[in-house]
Amino acid sequence: MSESVAVIGAGLVGCLAALALSKEGYQVTLYDFRHDPRLDTTQNKNLKSINLAISARGIDALKSVDFGACERILQDMIPMKGRMIHDLRGEQESQLYGLHGEAINSINRSVLNNKLLDELEKTTAELKFGHKLARIEWTDDKQICHFAAEEDSKVPNIEKFDFIIGCDGAYSATRSQMQRKVEMDYSQEYMDLRYIELYIPATKVSKQEYGGNFAIAPDHLHIWPRHRFMLIALANSDGSFTSTFFGPKDQISDLITSESRVKNFLVENFPDIVNIMDLDDAVKRFITYPKESLVCVNCKPYDVPGGKAILLGDAAHAMVPFYGQGMNCGFEDVRILMELLKKHSGDCSSAFVEYSQTRHKDLVSITELAKRNYKEMSHDVTSKRFLFRRKLDALFSVMMREKWIPLYTMVSFRSDISYSKALERAEKQTRILKFLESLAIGILSVSSFKLFKFLARERS
Amino acid sequence: MSESVAVIGAGLVGCLAALALSKEGYQVTLYDFRHDPRLDTTQNKNLKSINLAISARGIDALKSVDFGACERILQDMIPMKGRMIHDLRGEQESQLYGLHGEAINSINRSVLNNKLLDELEKTTAELKFGHKLARIEWTDDKQICHFAAEEDSKVPNIEKFDFIIGCDGAYSATRSQMQRKVEMDYSQEYMDLRYIELYIPATKVSKQEYGGNFAIAPDHLHIWPRHRFMLIALANSDGSFTSTFFGPKDQISDLITSESRVKNFLVENFPDIVNIMDLDDAVKRFITYPKESLVCVNCKPYDVPGGKAILLGDAAHAMVPFYGQGMNCGFEDVRILMELLKKHSGDCSSAFVEYSQTRHKDLVSITELAKRNYKEMSHDVTSKRFLFRRKLDALFSVMMREKWIPLYTMVSFRSDISYSKALERAEKQTRILKFLESLAIGILSVSSFKLFKFLARERS
Repeated sequence: MSESVAVIGAGLVGCLAALALSKEGYQVTLYDFRHDPRLDTTQNKNLKSINLAISARGIDALKSVDFGACERILQDMIPMKGRMIHDLRGEQESQLYGLHGEAINSINRSVLNNKLLDELEKTTAELKFGHKLARIEWTDDKQICHFAAEEDSKVPNIEKFDFIIGCDGAYSATRSQMQRKVEMDYSQEYMDLRYIELYIPATKVSKQEYGGNFAIAPDHLHIWPRHRFMLIALANSDGSFTSTFFGPKDQISDLITSESRVKNFLVENFPDIVNIMDLDDAVKRFITYPKESLVCVNCKPYDVPGGKAILLGDAAHAMVPFYGQGMNCGFEDVRILMELLKKHSGDCSSAFVEYSQTRHKDLVSITELAKRNYKEMSHDVTSKRFLFRRKLDALFSVMMREKWIPLYTMVSFRSDISYSKALERAEKQTRILKFLESLAIGILSVSSFKLFKFLARERS
Repeated sequence: MSESVAVIGAGLVGCLAALALSKEGYQVTLYDFRHDPRLDTTQNKNLKSINLAISARGIDALKSVDFGACERILQDMIPMKGRMIHDLRGEQESQLYGLHGEAINSINRSVLNNKLLDELEKTTAELKFGHKLARIEWTDDKQICHFAAEEDSKVPNIEKFDFIIGCDGAYSATRSQMQRKVEMDYSQEYMDLRYIELYIPATKVSKQEYGGNFAIAPDHLHIWPRHRFMLIALANSDGSFTSTFFGPKDQISDLITSESRVKNFLVENFPDIVNIMDLDDAVKRFITYPKESLVCVNCKPYDVPGGKAILLGDAAHAMVPFYGQGMNCGFEDVRILMELLKKHSGDCSSAFVEYSQTRHKDLVSITELAKRNYKEMSHDVTSKRFLFRRKLDALFSVMMREKWIPLYTMVSFRSDISYSKALERAEKQTRILKFLESLAIGILSVSSFKLFKFLARERS
């Protein structure tokens, strides 16, 4: 008989894990404490979702699970080939992501989640919503999951599984239960930032320049970088944009004390959004929408020895959204786990241990890179020095091909290079760039000094 | 009416906090999930206690709470003026802690805990044992504590307080409840070490050289440093020593597979303990006693805004025992909190916030120092270079007095220098020592080169 698996959490990573295991013949039950998002339209309102950018790692993982499903799932995605920087005067500047037109792809979180659930319905996997994990009893044989009772529920609340996959996000209940069994190193860190979800509607008439009802170019990730805070916008297939404001907690608390303050703030700092956003709606969202926090989570190990349980996605490595890698990394978790299960002929015990040992350095690298990228998005993209170094980076990449690859390219477009390897190579490249910069400055100083001396002599 | 306080945890720090608050007129109730340790003799067996070393910060905090009580409480402590290093041949070498005979003081954990409870009985504080904190309801007015029911208990299980002091150790239930209310940065890290409690009995006849029934010098902290593992021993007032073995997890798991392996290991590595320890008892403890883990905890902030709750001691900063500062730092927490309450005229809200803001850097410093000190105790103390640098350190200290103070002195004997200041000053001093070392090596090389040339010339 095939092994039974409980996947806890029907978010993006949980759905993909369930799909992958189900395709491999495991007897999968997918649990979530929420109701089925496809039925409950009120939940689908994006009060707190940042649009997703799916890139190479995410797409490769989807393909590795099911090529056909991947094509169906990703048909609505919108390629974004670069960042569009909006300055204070409303001017726009395109900064391409790759040298060869590589793109990351905007996709709406709930659209993607629902499509994954639809694909899952085609398999033997069972979906159980409204099931909140309360406790896991760890035994040598089966792992016994206790789910908190729902008032109107008649389903049995205790079920046994061969193993458990925890995909229940940053505040994972599975992880808490694992910590009662395993000595787990763990850290959580809150950023001094809040985010608020805003919205740019589709234009009423189609705009020829963008080939649809988009108010601004859909093939870019739009950024209004203002150093301590920023606004971003990612296109949806219906012509609208999901937009997000990020700023320090104190600033937001100060702002939302009055509607006029918010209005003035928006008009002053993002003058061009007045043309594309309903300003009153934006003000209302600022005041009334939840101000979401951003948390980073790291832990180690990710498994309970004996192949009893493993953590994937945000439950293992919640990260800030500034590298667009949260979901991509979670999907890659699934691909790597499935590869290890295959390598160890389905022996969970060995596969989970190897996963914990080999995956950690990559997960630490990408959570760290994501944290650093807030400064890049909100500040560096406006700095001349950063742009110069970026051009040099691209030049070397053209000249040296595989021997020099820009960091963003390695992270977003090269799933064959692990996150830790990418970080390591990038640090080496940065050292070289900095050295060359100093050298250039040195040569320039000497030359100007000589020139100055020459001119002085001429004059006298 | 005076404010009501729940102190959660009747360990060392909880008792001192309850004593301090009670003396200041607060209406204190002290809770612990265990039974009264003074009644329950089976609990008092030191299966997992490392003897304590109380030093300046701990003593000053006790004195600040109650000078008389401090004298009563500390009457059984045994001063230790240095480390006694035992080498593989059984030879002993004394390394003094201070230049002026300063000493840290060995005291048995349960003796100290019971004496603190006795002092507390003299105040208006209420003691409630067998009360396990299950949940805290945070309200704008009172904080409502729910305690899990004990079968034979008829006490009410829900009680309200103005504020809560969480002193319930590394696995604090108070902290978990606070994390539901506050965005708390948090980290826990397990060391790759286990410890096992051993025992050196008092000698049958009094030994003149040590003035009592001590088998080895009571005025030293004994260390058998063996690089990857070590044994330590601290004297008790009855002539016995509490001894602790520390070693890597894997090593211990390997060892305890057979009694003869443990026996051989002990005789080989600690040849002189055969004379002072019951070897069969030690082997039995190795095999049957719990192998305790060592965890480091850091968090931030330590309080729930509005003066609702605060964490002290291990609940806020569990550290490894290698600097002998766990309890001392926890006691200092109490002193500093009481000073801040006085400064803010009893306004908890302001006092707790200031505590969180100002105490963090010190707590981070001492948890880090404690971690580093394992290498010093188990390895460095046998290194010639370390001992040379230590002598230089002492020499500078004599020459420059207040301008140069060895780190150990600042941490253990100078409660007027904060942990963070101590660490900062020590890092500067180490940089100077290292520079002087390089300089000396440089001068020596040049001189020997010249000497060599001179000799070569003479010869030819």
